[in-house]
Amino acid sequence: MKSDLHRLMAENELDAIWVIGPAAHNPPMVYLTGGGHITQADLILKRGEKGVLFHGPMERDEAARTGLITRSYSSYPFAEFLKEANQDRFRASVLRLKRMLEDLGLTRGRVMLFGQYDAGVAFALFDALQKELPELSILGDVENKVLQQAMLTKDREEVERIRRVGQKTVEVIDLTADYLRSQRLKGDVLVDAQGEPITVGRVKRLINLWLAERDLENPEGTIFAIGRDAGVPHSSGKAEDVLRAGQTIVFDIFPCETGGGYFFDMTRTWCLGYAPGAVEKLYEQVLTVFHAVSSEVRVHGHFRDLQRRTCELFEGMGHPTVLTQPQTEVGYVHSLGHGVGLNIHEKPVSGLMASPEDDVLLPGSVVTIEPGLYYPDQNMGVRLENTVYLAPDGKIETLADYPLDLVLKLKG
Amino acid sequence: MKSDLHRLMAENELDAIWVIGPAAHNPPMVYLTGGGHITQADLILKRGEKGVLFHGPMERDEAARTGLITRSYSSYPFAEFLKEANQDRFRASVLRLKRMLEDLGLTRGRVMLFGQYDAGVAFALFDALQKELPELSILGDVENKVLQQAMLTKDREEVERIRRVGQKTVEVIDLTADYLRSQRLKGDVLVDAQGEPITVGRVKRLINLWLAERDLENPEGTIFAIGRDAGVPHSSGKAEDVLRAGQTIVFDIFPCETGGGYFFDMTRTWCLGYAPGAVEKLYEQVLTVFHAVSSEVRVHGHFRDLQRRTCELFEGMGHPTVLTQPQTEVGYVHSLGHGVGLNIHEKPVSGLMASPEDDVLLPGSVVTIEPGLYYPDQNMGVRLENTVYLAPDGKIETLADYPLDLVLKLKG
Repeated sequence: MKSDLHRLMAENELDAIWVIGPAAHNPPMVYLTGGGHITQADLILKRGEKGVLFHGPMERDEAARTGLITRSYSSYPFAEFLKEANQDRFRASVLRLKRMLEDLGLTRGRVMLFGQYDAGVAFALFDALQKELPELSILGDVENKVLQQAMLTKDREEVERIRRVGQKTVEVIDLTADYLRSQRLKGDVLVDAQGEPITVGRVKRLINLWLAERDLENPEGTIFAIGRDAGVPHSSGKAEDVLRAGQTIVFDIFPCETGGGYFFDMTRTWCLGYAPGAVEKLYEQVLTVFHAVSSEVRVHGHFRDLQRRTCELFEGMGHPTVLTQPQTEVGYVHSLGHGVGLNIHEKPVSGLMASPEDDVLLPGSVVTIEPGLYYPDQNMGVRLENTVYLAPDGKIETLADYPLDLVLKLKG
Repeated sequence: MKSDLHRLMAENELDAIWVIGPAAHNPPMVYLTGGGHITQADLILKRGEKGVLFHGPMERDEAARTGLITRSYSSYPFAEFLKEANQDRFRASVLRLKRMLEDLGLTRGRVMLFGQYDAGVAFALFDALQKELPELSILGDVENKVLQQAMLTKDREEVERIRRVGQKTVEVIDLTADYLRSQRLKGDVLVDAQGEPITVGRVKRLINLWLAERDLENPEGTIFAIGRDAGVPHSSGKAEDVLRAGQTIVFDIFPCETGGGYFFDMTRTWCLGYAPGAVEKLYEQVLTVFHAVSSEVRVHGHFRDLQRRTCELFEGMGHPTVLTQPQTEVGYVHSLGHGVGLNIHEKPVSGLMASPEDDVLLPGSVVTIEPGLYYPDQNMGVRLENTVYLAPDGKIETLADYPLDLVLKLKG
């Protein structure tokens, strides 16, 4: 967790970490500043010291609110560096960064770089800076040993934030179910009181509304996919698709706190009115596996072992899986789950090839459990997903729950 | 505009551009794919050819919808590269990218890299790839000569999308004004029918709701800042602040299409009930300058000249400005405006030190005009902002308009 950061820096022989970019929707910056309206900043955290936030002069109040030591970019007037660089703007930017590092006494040793940024500019900029400061090693966290490792476990405050997002998410799922149940059928098409067909786009708009009412954002969109689309795990659903009775709807919702904060992730699969036999059977199989693997989650266990177990259970039921057919597009085609935090997908991972450090289920982790079966050519797919917390005392807690029922009976 | 891209590639002697990262909230990827639910992709556009999109196997439908040539990552099984790299995951990633480039015949020449990505990983990854492919120059667009240059002017479809966001934004501003006017005062505090004070947080939540109802997202948040905060241009306003009569409220709203599409940007300054003399005077001065510089926008003009003109006008009224006091935090403290598109801030820029290619107001540009005056220690600030389109025929069009009035008279 966050309090591990200085220890992780020591273990990785780092003298500092350096986060660049905006605060909003930039997980490393949110992690270390708490978020807020900061357009562009450099945050440098030296090992064992308090962090320093370089910020634009107009954002001094927001910067002050982070509790970090603040320094305005206005103390580094670009005009001066332009002059020094003979009007070469790129070189002036490099010289300014160099000066900032010099002022912090960070010109040798090892610094690791984080933050969402334009990949090409980052490559060019830090390549040039590296040449200016040959005694400083500028590194990227390609093995996710520092920040992702810290984020792997959550402190109490983080878990409570995720739980609150989960509670609100469940409210929105319930509103969605209620909305659908309140409509009626015309043939097999779901229509409103005026006889207008209900489309995926209309439902998604309502979901966004209900999320906004609860101070949640939906930066990654919602998966609300029916029929063939439900059979393709990451198909998000076509706005113009009309909802029909007896077809599987995969509803996967993953909002976050406003401004790009903590996420929550949940999936239910619904059939309006009734479920055909083949769908019912598929659902029962996913439900069985969902319960089985959920009950086998253990602190200090390995996510990969649960993935293998999920594959074996599904194969025992006669489905192809990624265990024996890595490229299958039918049956069980993805991995069992992932960590959830400031990133919708973060460590631990559950791929069959995951390394032991990446897939260990440490106390303090928050992960999804989401088995599913997919048969797009039969117009069906089923996935069930909860987000669970592995508490320090070993208890496994579902952070927000909602009935797993398949069929949404219409009220009319 | 988008159709200039291959020409800009030729002018910059590029053989290809390469965009990495997700589609959502990643402007280069949205620009070239149209958006959609793509978690992670590589898009390679060779000069004079159709683009190729490498995508995850689960996102094949979304990938197909982009109209690009698609290739699934599943054709590049990671296990094979891991083996080749002796289980070194980082090196396996590099080898996989190398193979993808080889398959496109892109192993020499010049390729420019774009896309939001972790800066440190990008630096490490492309540094290693560069060493693998010494005849290929991997470049970053540090001078913004390619994609930002293309984005500098908008085609008809883009302008219509921005205009639609503008119309919806104006609806939300009007709803906000109406909501505030419908409350009443208790002393100088704005309260609702139950006598509860109206806070900045409550207003912002409503704004998000009204935006969501219109299929808009608000990834950067809203500035709704009162009193001293109104005097600090980028202070976004504290949620717990109570609205009071006679204080300036700077309301700067900049939503975008759902999923990270086109933005719009507008600012109004309001006083509830009445405006004190000092505020009235400040407002009249900003209004005068707003009208003056708005009427002086010309295609092929330079934004920097308008910025200088704005400073001179404000200095003539006795205010400090960045022209003679670059670090001033009172008076006119920022630049006049910026381009608006898939980025809330893009080219052209209006800083006094802008280069002539960066600040030219080409036909087809969409820019903001937003003069303001700030006196935080006097608890006041005023900014007025419109987004305007410089049409190919030379006409300057305000894309969405709303009354500029300062005082919101309460109905009660």
